[in-house]
Amino acid sequence: MDNLTPGLDPEPPAHLLTQAPGAPVRSGIPEHGRIPKYYAVKARMAGLIEELGDGQPLPTERDLAERYEVARETVRQALRELLLEGRLRRQGRGTVVAGPKLEQPLSLASYTEGVRRQGRTPGRNLISLDRFPCPGPLAAEIGAEPGEAVWHMERVLLADDERVGLESTYVSVARVPRLDADFEPDSSFYAYLRDRLGISFGDADERIETVLATPREALLIGTPPALPMLLIHRLSRDTSGRPLERVRTLYRGDRFSFTTHLG
Amino acid sequence: MDNLTPGLDPEPPAHLLTQAPGAPVRSGIPEHGRIPKYYAVKARMAGLIEELGDGQPLPTERDLAERYEVARETVRQALRELLLEGRLRRQGRGTVVAGPKLEQPLSLASYTEGVRRQGRTPGRNLISLDRFPCPGPLAAEIGAEPGEAVWHMERVLLADDERVGLESTYVSVARVPRLDADFEPDSSFYAYLRDRLGISFGDADERIETVLATPREALLIGTPPALPMLLIHRLSRDTSGRPLERVRTLYRGDRFSFTTHLG
Repeated sequence: MDNLTPGLDPEPPAHLLTQAPGAPVRSGIPEHGRIPKYYAVKARMAGLIEELGDGQPLPTERDLAERYEVARETVRQALRELLLEGRLRRQGRGTVVAGPKLEQPLSLASYTEGVRRQGRTPGRNLISLDRFPCPGPLAAEIGAEPGEAVWHMERVLLADDERVGLESTYVSVARVPRLDADFEPDSSFYAYLRDRLGISFGDADERIETVLATPREALLIGTPPALPMLLIHRLSRDTSGRPLERVRTLYRGDRFSFTTHLG
Repeated sequence: MDNLTPGLDPEPPAHLLTQAPGAPVRSGIPEHGRIPKYYAVKARMAGLIEELGDGQPLPTERDLAERYEVARETVRQALRELLLEGRLRRQGRGTVVAGPKLEQPLSLASYTEGVRRQGRTPGRNLISLDRFPCPGPLAAEIGAEPGEAVWHMERVLLADDERVGLESTYVSVARVPRLDADFEPDSSFYAYLRDRLGISFGDADERIETVLATPREALLIGTPPALPMLLIHRLSRDTSGRPLERVRTLYRGDRFSFTTHLG
């Protein structure tokens, strides 16, 4: 497999090309031509999903197994992947067609703003707010001295009341002394910094990766434990260039994508 | 669970805080306090991985099961997640500690450049190069007319001879007429555009999401089928602002992270 030669691939069927330009045109078809059975079912279910449209209920497992003439376990495997990919979602006891992923711009703007721009209602539920002595490496990242008090605030992110992520913010207590007293945890931390403390963001470095949710994270966000998540690490500085906060945000991989413009 | 109240979380143990500032400090511990057994093993193995260091071999499944006094299946589940997360990797018949993920900047620069900057050797293996009549929506994206001939070039991405991704490039034949004749598929397409055709990139829009590899993609990249991948869609324009190419690049989620600076 390490020296694949050209020409192994047949011309993709025309209907795939017109249906999904730029998509994986020959998606799912291994070079050797053997298609796993569940995958063939998944491809047909993907077609069905497109026909049905957002929010429409999917037929039952049993109906699907009959329709495609396969075992229910085969249907279940296809369902599992379509759920993980965010093309379907559970609703009550049934399964419905999911809307498109949220497209969040990578920007200095807050989560709150990003979600609003897409016509959804942002929300946040506080999980915990503690203070602890700042360990050395974190101190440098948030502009504090080692051992100085630091806040750790953890919040579940909501979009239209759906739990979609989990955010951990680390900021020095000296910088935001009354965080536990006069900050409304359901609101935007960035708006609080700006309006109450006159602190604005100047720039930030971000790193994006994909990880599996831990059992605790999966429980807090309400996702299956094996769901791929997008994890964004952010180090931000204020307008004077002074380090301000470290944020670790986990987003449901089936509900979010991130966009950026490269100039 | 939809209205979590503060204060449910115990103070994190001090050793976790000093060990991993900014990391998920209470990672893996559900609020209700029950930690899945495999997860406790995984946490201990994560400690072992740190002690061992990059490239060092992990003890066998049997040794690990004895050491942690659990069933081999429990060890296997922990191993599976550590492999999916890229903290371990298979080497021959054994398992070794993996190096850190590659950090690729989100930029107009090519994959080739990004990998070189990290001291790794980039490479590409051609899978297929075909031309087909451009479907409507793709035409607008690459600055072609519907029905006009378009190239689809698919290449496996390598870093130090390891397969790490799969890239599909769509570009109009009128724009790059001799792609099949005088482009060396192992080299940088961007360098080719610049040096042979005088075409430079002006800007691009990107969208990042996490997806599961299809069976075909997993086979081409040599990953387990359920491995979470990072998928980047790119639409780029030349320096005159004219649409140029559409690229769909799939990166191994266990080997890559992406960085960006927000100003």
